[in-house]
Amino acid sequence: MAPVYKLTYFPLRGLAEPIRFLLHYGNIEFEDFRIETENWPEIKPHMPFGKIPSIAITRYLAKKVKLVGANDLEDLEIDAIVDTINDLRGNIARYHYETNEAVKESSKKPLFEETIPYYLERMEAIVKKNNGHLAVGKLTWADFFFVGIVDTLNFMIKKNLIADCPNLQGLQKNVLNLPAIKEWVAKRPVSDL
Amino acid sequence: MAPVYKLTYFPLRGLAEPIRFLLHYGNIEFEDFRIETENWPEIKPHMPFGKIPSIAITRYLAKKVKLVGANDLEDLEIDAIVDTINDLRGNIARYHYETNEAVKESSKKPLFEETIPYYLERMEAIVKKNNGHLAVGKLTWADFFFVGIVDTLNFMIKKNLIADCPNLQGLQKNVLNLPAIKEWVAKRPVSDL
Repeated sequence: MAPVYKLTYFPLRGLAEPIRFLLHYGNIEFEDFRIETENWPEIKPHMPFGKIPSIAITRYLAKKVKLVGANDLEDLEIDAIVDTINDLRGNIARYHYETNEAVKESSKKPLFEETIPYYLERMEAIVKKNNGHLAVGKLTWADFFFVGIVDTLNFMIKKNLIADCPNLQGLQKNVLNLPAIKEWVAKRPVSDL
Repeated sequence: MAPVYKLTYFPLRGLAEPIRFLLHYGNIEFEDFRIETENWPEIKPHMPFGKIPSIAITRYLAKKVKLVGANDLEDLEIDAIVDTINDLRGNIARYHYETNEAVKESSKKPLFEETIPYYLERMEAIVKKNNGHLAVGKLTWADFFFVGIVDTLNFMIKKNLIADCPNLQGLQKNVLNLPAIKEWVAKRPVSDL
């Protein structure tokens, strides 16, 4: 019997959703193990650094399902945009999870008026000139990474991040219309994040 | 004539230093182009996202000089620890660059008493049981990444991050004793960061 992957994550899309997209896309059997938040303190010590190394896992699975570049230089382009999207995600997540209301309030304007438009304008321009994709002119795991996390980012900022980005909307539509992704998204558990 | 790499960065070690380590280690010719801080506003718009995609470049060069894993699973292990080290770096850099003194002061205790010990204890344990290395039991670009940035992190926190970590000190010594690295470190420009 072949080993079956077990994906351990919170009952959320979060950073696990690009991983789930890749597994469904590649028709790879896996156990979608969702830990209850109250059980996390018990599990956390067993994670090497108290976190799931989600981007490293996403890159690994992208190789398995052949959503990587054709050579090292293409992989550099993919890795660079994934890190960029993850920088944007980090900015949004720090805002969302900030518990000091004064700090949160003071970070709101720079986030919404500077950081988000800065990233989105550039990502939109890349997709426009890049055959509808975030890297190397074809479908790669960078597209899955972005589309997999954008709903969660939207929830965190209480607006649609790509409302003014027709090319990113087109990319999102194309990924969500892939048969395996469409089937997964239709049946996945509902969550805010 | 073969193309020659041009590395564009501030006159700092920073996140470029692991890249410089790899280029020297691989005996790859490159122009170590250091922009003056006052010229950055002119150059920044030409960077796709106003930043240098340093980790993606580091991974790319690691492939060229064969400091990667023997297979995809080993690369996953390397990528995971690099992202972990980069998380720690991000925590330290945000503290260092925080301009609001009240925010900086309130973040000091959690950083020094929780975050840093948490990461360092676990990294030290990994190196101890892992043949003196951060991943896959042999020299990889994860080791270069850590040793390449640790002096800069030390400057940011005004102490030696690995003062209580004999195994990480051993790793640092081994990397700094590689002939190409030793030669580079002896002649590199001096900077705080």
